Amino acid sequence: MEQVKLYDTTLRDGMQGEGMSLSSAEKVRVVRALDKLGVQMIEAGFPSSNPKEEELFGALAGVELEHSVVCGFGMTRRRGVAAADDPALLTLVDSFAPVVTLVGKTWALHLEKVTKVSREENLAMIAESVGFCRERGKRVVYDAEHFFDSYREDPGYALSCLEAAIDAGAENVTLCDTNGASLPNQVAAATEVAVNRFGARVEVGIHAHDDAGCGVANSLAAVEAGARLVQGTVNGYGERCGNANLTTILPALQLKMGFAVVPAENLETLTETVHFVDELCNLPPDPNAPYVGRNAFAHKGGMHVAGVEADARTFEHIDPAAVGNERAILPSELSGKATIRDRAAAVGLKMDDATASRAIEVLKEREHHGFHYEAAPASFELLLRQEAGVYKPLFELESYRVVTQRRAGGEVETEATVKLKVDGERYVEIAEGNGPVSALDHALRKAITSRHPHLSEIELTNYKVRILDQDRGTDAVTRVLLDSADGEREWGTTGVSGNVIEASWQALVDSLEYAFQ
Amino acid sequence: MEQVKLYDTTLRDGMQGEGMSLSSAEKVRVVRALDKLGVQMIEAGFPSSNPKEEELFGALAGVELEHSVVCGFGMTRRRGVAAADDPALLTLVDSFAPVVTLVGKTWALHLEKVTKVSREENLAMIAESVGFCRERGKRVVYDAEHFFDSYREDPGYALSCLEAAIDAGAENVTLCDTNGASLPNQVAAATEVAVNRFGARVEVGIHAHDDAGCGVANSLAAVEAGARLVQGTVNGYGERCGNANLTTILPALQLKMGFAVVPAENLETLTETVHFVDELCNLPPDPNAPYVGRNAFAHKGGMHVAGVEADARTFEHIDPAAVGNERAILPSELSGKATIRDRAAAVGLKMDDATASRAIEVLKEREHHGFHYEAAPASFELLLRQEAGVYKPLFELESYRVVTQRRAGGEVETEATVKLKVDGERYVEIAEGNGPVSALDHALRKAITSRHPHLSEIELTNYKVRILDQDRGTDAVTRVLLDSADGEREWGTTGVSGNVIEASWQALVDSLEYAFQ
Repeated sequence: MEQVKLYDTTLRDGMQGEGMSLSSAEKVRVVRALDKLGVQMIEAGFPSSNPKEEELFGALAGVELEHSVVCGFGMTRRRGVAAADDPALLTLVDSFAPVVTLVGKTWALHLEKVTKVSREENLAMIAESVGFCRERGKRVVYDAEHFFDSYREDPGYALSCLEAAIDAGAENVTLCDTNGASLPNQVAAATEVAVNRFGARVEVGIHAHDDAGCGVANSLAAVEAGARLVQGTVNGYGERCGNANLTTILPALQLKMGFAVVPAENLETLTETVHFVDELCNLPPDPNAPYVGRNAFAHKGGMHVAGVEADARTFEHIDPAAVGNERAILPSELSGKATIRDRAAAVGLKMDDATASRAIEVLKEREHHGFHYEAAPASFELLLRQEAGVYKPLFELESYRVVTQRRAGGEVETEATVKLKVDGERYVEIAEGNGPVSALDHALRKAITSRHPHLSEIELTNYKVRILDQDRGTDAVTRVLLDSADGEREWGTTGVSGNVIEASWQALVDSLEYAFQ
Repeated sequence: MEQVKLYDTTLRDGMQGEGMSLSSAEKVRVVRALDKLGVQMIEAGFPSSNPKEEELFGALAGVELEHSVVCGFGMTRRRGVAAADDPALLTLVDSFAPVVTLVGKTWALHLEKVTKVSREENLAMIAESVGFCRERGKRVVYDAEHFFDSYREDPGYALSCLEAAIDAGAENVTLCDTNGASLPNQVAAATEVAVNRFGARVEVGIHAHDDAGCGVANSLAAVEAGARLVQGTVNGYGERCGNANLTTILPALQLKMGFAVVPAENLETLTETVHFVDELCNLPPDPNAPYVGRNAFAHKGGMHVAGVEADARTFEHIDPAAVGNERAILPSELSGKATIRDRAAAVGLKMDDATASRAIEVLKEREHHGFHYEAAPASFELLLRQEAGVYKPLFELESYRVVTQRRAGGEVETEATVKLKVDGERYVEIAEGNGPVSALDHALRKAITSRHPHLSEIELTNYKVRILDQDRGTDAVTRVLLDSADGEREWGTTGVSGNVIEASWQALVDSLEYAFQ
């Protein structure tokens, strides 16, 4: 099988995305994770005199990697300065990174309007910069900025920029769709020309962006046309609409197009790896992401579920296990007894046919009232436990009360009172909160944790409110979704009521009861 | 210019997405918005005996549309039943919708393993179902489920399924990549064969999914191969990884590939239209969405900004105005001020330069705290009135209090008290409600309407809650959007606070004050 290399620029181009920020220590963890996955080249950033970048390259110098090589990124020399006198190039060649990736101009419009450099001087800047890095012992990847825009206007000049880099010793020339303007056929045609012209002397790469929603397809089209290195980022992080998404490109290359990219057993860690990077970046994983999203192999229509059970190929484009993901059968009105029993078995509950039928009736009834268990598997499990007769109530509620008031002075304050029995003992507690739900949470935990101290460790990590029949104004039914975590596990619960306080209370109680089961 | 049609299935396939739910009234609003945009065909759902779908089709029958035609969706007849005896087909042909879209099986694996129907009977099911709908006066679109999977295994059978539908009178056969398994070149090759074989007799369509991250590219590849109808959803909503994203496909077809799809001035409303649909679905717009995302034309790298200023083409793949979006480095004071003054003039307010500057400062401050006036023009107008010095307060609040309690018996009840002065006179009122916000509304109106009886006619028609920093759990900041109407006008207001009650109160007060101005 032919090899295609992945070149990850999450730590450089990916960091241009909105709200992206990682410490040097976190960047090192990303590098280790990508190495473990089998990514061949990792662009770590600009090795510069900036203390943060210095710290990162210093730390990376000491990291032993199995599959990956670290690349430092920089630009071709400044106009009118010898490469050996350009401070940025000097820092680059002094860095430990064995590969230098140089980006240079390729588009005449850009030279004329923005950088005011002549076409000839630009070629000299490319050749001398690449040559200098080679002389100083570096491997060089040359990134041809705006290659496809340039190629559409003046293919000859676009190709001569590549040639300047190749003649000077670059081992790879990467064609960049810098603005993300191109469509797959344009990328394929121009890449084919570059590969035909230079493929015998050099490896050709592709660097795409998602401005036209074709970042993945453009990368795959370039590979079909002969490119053998794909630049991109984990989950497509990057500025504007993001970079080409390596998380999607990797399985397509390996499972659909028959290229060797990473060992098959590494591909099985893809989902875990990219969720780890999401976690470091403090971004919630996209539930609908191809291959690795929570919903990527989720089925809810009855017909689909029957199909998947008869032959998975009928409704799954790959085996989810190949990328470390799993099939999710969503509980919904349409699901049948077999699904319910599967779900029950998955949480260790035995359920006979009659019980499963009863559970379906309860589920239908609840869904009719606005419950929706897709995003609240913990509440669904409690429902199954109740039907299976193995549910232990955490407490017995007598009453609660929440008061929110805005005083004459303008301050808003909220307090909640709960009266309940835990293991036969009565507790009456009051607590304040930022809003009615946090006040209720505080009061409930005060009452319960004297008996069950471990429940104090639960953190409410996410709280969502959806108004179901919005056109009924403030009298509409409200569905609350609550995510909780205790450091080890995460779980989602739900509540539904015409009263947002009561809906929140239900989700809150389910969260604690789930942790208690 | 050659025409390509858009076929929107947001209201059917899009509703399979996680957490998607719209009332019939909201679905009608989506249909009107898509019609205004110029979408040619809108699949509204399954016209069935289900009361909710009945209500929707009933409502749509009375809606006059300028550009769009409504399609009802259904399956080919059941095995062993005559088409004229199939209850689902009967409901379909009895519906007002002039187009019937029928989905049928195309893949032998699927027939053998799942539906247990022979290849011959399947062809008869297709032909008879299409024929029956044609006899009953319907235009028919035939959706060939799993077309590409089938084509890869047995192209002859895949094509004979299309032929059965065409011979029976379908005006369009749409090739479905039901599992999203295909890559663009596979789609292009199979589509080309179908177009060559049947293109003279029938229009060919494409229905793609995003499981391989190629939903957009697959749709464009099919059009390049001769397809002239594209099925998809607004923003790519749909199950698993979503359907082909029409929001991305439309500008590519029209601005990059030279097809006529919608009038150019309609394309300029694209951003607004899709954000409106997001809003109805209570989903936050994706900031990184191609073409319409807030970041799609945002520039932050210094080099990029210099480039964009020298010549926008150097870092923008299209003119953002062509899709109603805007570049995000230019929120300059100047254009800001002009906009504010325009908005003020539109509601009859004169505003000098200094006042406009002050209003911009207030607006920035409020937006920093989470306010967002796009969907709350009435609150924005009140802000302008305050800055322009022509704001008349409706009342002077002393305090409010809301109490929600769940009693020992399980009943939940809510009451609200308000103390305020209207025209110097003090009112203390109490009222009950289904939830805290409706109780507050009732108490506030009791206090105010003795003085301003016409405010009792205001109806709160829509109430939405969005948690802004969801990962702060129940301590997050909450934004409330409230729509009101009085039989003549409709207006939207907003409130933001760490306390959902206070945020709702602000939106409520803005609503009444707006009506009072």
